Amino acid sequence: MLSSTNPRTGESRPTGIAACTPDEADRVIRAADAAFEDASAEDRLWRAGLLDALADALDANRDELAAIADRETGLGLPRLTGEVGRSSFQFRLFADAVREGSHLEATIDRAATTPLGPQPEIRRMLVPIGTVAVFGSSNFPFAFSVAGGDTASALAAGNAVVLKAHSSHLETSRASHAVLRDAAAAYGAPDGLIGIVYGTEAGRVLVSHPLVQAVGFTGSLGGGRALMDLIDERPRPIPFYGELSSLNPLIITPAAAVARGEAIADGLYGSFTLGSGQFCTKPGVAFVPVGEAGDALVARIAAKAADAASAVLLNERIAASFDEIRDRVTAGGTVDVLAQGVVEPGAGFTAAPTVLATTAAELTAEATEEVFGPLIVIVRYREDAEIVRALDAVPDSLTATVHSEASDAGAVAALVRELAPRVGRLVFDGYPTGVRVSWGQHHGGPWPSTNSQHTSVGVSAIRRFLRPLAWQDAPEALLPAELRDGYEGIPRRVDGVLQLG
Amino acid sequence: MLSSTNPRTGESRPTGIAACTPDEADRVIRAADAAFEDASAEDRLWRAGLLDALADALDANRDELAAIADRETGLGLPRLTGEVGRSSFQFRLFADAVREGSHLEATIDRAATTPLGPQPEIRRMLVPIGTVAVFGSSNFPFAFSVAGGDTASALAAGNAVVLKAHSSHLETSRASHAVLRDAAAAYGAPDGLIGIVYGTEAGRVLVSHPLVQAVGFTGSLGGGRALMDLIDERPRPIPFYGELSSLNPLIITPAAAVARGEAIADGLYGSFTLGSGQFCTKPGVAFVPVGEAGDALVARIAAKAADAASAVLLNERIAASFDEIRDRVTAGGTVDVLAQGVVEPGAGFTAAPTVLATTAAELTAEATEEVFGPLIVIVRYREDAEIVRALDAVPDSLTATVHSEASDAGAVAALVRELAPRVGRLVFDGYPTGVRVSWGQHHGGPWPSTNSQHTSVGVSAIRRFLRPLAWQDAPEALLPAELRDGYEGIPRRVDGVLQLG
Repeated sequence: MLSSTNPRTGESRPTGIAACTPDEADRVIRAADAAFEDASAEDRLWRAGLLDALADALDANRDELAAIADRETGLGLPRLTGEVGRSSFQFRLFADAVREGSHLEATIDRAATTPLGPQPEIRRMLVPIGTVAVFGSSNFPFAFSVAGGDTASALAAGNAVVLKAHSSHLETSRASHAVLRDAAAAYGAPDGLIGIVYGTEAGRVLVSHPLVQAVGFTGSLGGGRALMDLIDERPRPIPFYGELSSLNPLIITPAAAVARGEAIADGLYGSFTLGSGQFCTKPGVAFVPVGEAGDALVARIAAKAADAASAVLLNERIAASFDEIRDRVTAGGTVDVLAQGVVEPGAGFTAAPTVLATTAAELTAEATEEVFGPLIVIVRYREDAEIVRALDAVPDSLTATVHSEASDAGAVAALVRELAPRVGRLVFDGYPTGVRVSWGQHHGGPWPSTNSQHTSVGVSAIRRFLRPLAWQDAPEALLPAELRDGYEGIPRRVDGVLQLG
Repeated sequence: MLSSTNPRTGESRPTGIAACTPDEADRVIRAADAAFEDASAEDRLWRAGLLDALADALDANRDELAAIADRETGLGLPRLTGEVGRSSFQFRLFADAVREGSHLEATIDRAATTPLGPQPEIRRMLVPIGTVAVFGSSNFPFAFSVAGGDTASALAAGNAVVLKAHSSHLETSRASHAVLRDAAAAYGAPDGLIGIVYGTEAGRVLVSHPLVQAVGFTGSLGGGRALMDLIDERPRPIPFYGELSSLNPLIITPAAAVARGEAIADGLYGSFTLGSGQFCTKPGVAFVPVGEAGDALVARIAAKAADAASAVLLNERIAASFDEIRDRVTAGGTVDVLAQGVVEPGAGFTAAPTVLATTAAELTAEATEEVFGPLIVIVRYREDAEIVRALDAVPDSLTATVHSEASDAGAVAALVRELAPRVGRLVFDGYPTGVRVSWGQHHGGPWPSTNSQHTSVGVSAIRRFLRPLAWQDAPEALLPAELRDGYEGIPRRVDGVLQLG
């Protein structure tokens, strides 16, 4: 039997959940695939209604779900209640997108004679892929877990989903799954459309299973690499959408340090300690100019950290890694501990907010190893050229942030040219944490995002779980409704011309 | 020095081309990357003009290019002249798409207060990725080679390109590259934007090079797997867009065999022998009903093959593989040689059009190994259930084709449900060869297409070489023009609503 641990106390209790055997996992996958086939008979609006029903169910069970998650994650009720709301918001946004229909990329090229001769009719749209495996992440027990964006976008695309519950919040996963499963059943969805498995071995079965068509994963680089290796061993590889850590550099120009030093210090402190620093968008390294204004800014951050109490981390492994990697980063002699919060001894898994300091001239790749938790590396620089050189020691990231003033415009443009190839989102005068869920959001980027072309937050996340299919000279009865002549209500491209429908 | 072989005679002649050393390849890649940076200052319409200029130059040199290719490929002047036209058509179609601007997926979410609280402004569009490596294929010396669709789509996206010349048509590659390079220079493009390397080692350097951001490859499964292994060894993996063979099943219903048996026999014979059967869309296996009409159809195909002269193949390796795989397929005892064309002894590389026959009940995976060249496996079936079972022995493909009559509608719908998950394009009452170049074309599919979500023919091929980038609360001056307020002339999504611009 698997157990659940309260990170505030370190105490474990039995969950009554057993790790799935490979046979059990296989049955869950086969049931999902059968449900996918059955649900394929339903139309787009049915699918949108399903997403809305799941959103309503999450809202109706919000307080109960948050309470279970609080016991397992220590993230606190306000954050967790809000996160359930974020999950239901995501389901509703995808429902809107499914109704709108652009995601189908419906395209009709009528038969024509071109400079290359007579050409057949081609109609194309994106279609679902089948059963998608979704691995829940530890740090978002709702919005990137069982009820998260991968689940919502895979279902929005028309697929079935099999979830791998994260070992760090098994009871939250079970309860979230029950809410989704029951709501889907009440809506009339076929049994098995949203399945769940527990345990590491079941996770391996998922990524190797011939009926699984894609994998969504948010977690460690090591865990992601291990799953990618399993996928490489498949006779037929499948897409792996992994988000495997991020350092998120943040740059403060001298003018910004002078004009808004205190506000930036407060904002930056809030951002790297938010959720105990357990966000993939946490700013892990900040470039601060040398000089008086930079000194004051750094001092203010350091003072805040020194006064702070230890923060609860999600689990024992994350707490152990925090200490281990912090020690490794500071072992080289070029990175100093500038400030550290109050270490409170106790049974739980905690870390004290920590500010490390180094210089751009001395920045090494070793100093930019990601520490998951409330830690930031402050890098002091003398001139922009030092930042540009130092960026080579910073891994590519989900985001980069620049704080500047209007007077910096030219220098900022040059910095942005350096930053843009390295990230998926550029943030100006703000903070990378708190990722907006919207049509245009992009939460991805170059490696270690494993698929640099896709996002895991925002409407275009659906694209990961769709594939194009073309019909050449098809009888109308065999076409999907959205590709038939006269269908209205979604944007379509006809003979190269986009029409709003 | 590398040599060029005339497949009609087997005679080699020196080309004066040396295989690139790793250092030389590195210099070509660095020059491309520098040119990419320089060209990034230009706008979208400049890029469209470049594509048009390249198209014009191909047309102006059409006859000269076709003559060189004829000597190296044996494909014949009519086909090769047409193929140059196909290449220039592709460049112009991508120029149109770049002007239209949908490929940017420009999206603006204004700052707003949502149920999740106050949200920042997010603007997103697709941006080029940098330098793209393109491996030319043997069977399309223009349309899938130096002047091919991968080159055109990577340039359309705003990237630089480094080509790996195919060893089977080195002089065609050199001449094609010279035409493109000179036209780009005359247009004012920076030197090195379209680079070329020669030799196997240079190809390895390409896929391993840190400045190369994606690889387009059309070729053998073995060659593709070897490149994918190299990419897996990179510290930062990159997308690999490979098209690595396809069997393209074709099904003829009993009613179609009765109604149009002769026409289908003629069409199918033409399709599997077109270009000496050297197309990734060649129908390699055809399901024909048992009975009189099916017998007559098969007899007609067999008679055509038996009367046919040997066809010239592209090179010695393809000719040797043709014999070797044909022998392997027929060695099991369940596949018979029904007809074989006249084998003409001679110095060139040739294969006789060949018709093999088996039954759906006996069809094995061994019998469906792809034979590149003019060979088809006829599979006789008694009922649709036999086809459905036999399809499990057929690898997933770029296309599947059904020939039917209106009276078959129900049975065809059931067959299409079986075929759709296995392919990227469904063809009705036609043939899979002759891929239309258009907005809606999809030339891809499940593995062995390595990226099941993308196409290598048609406008959406651009998507492979772009990536999303989001700007959060960016000063207007730092935004690309297409994302600024008031920009007109391209479709954009503003606050979730698609606008034609």
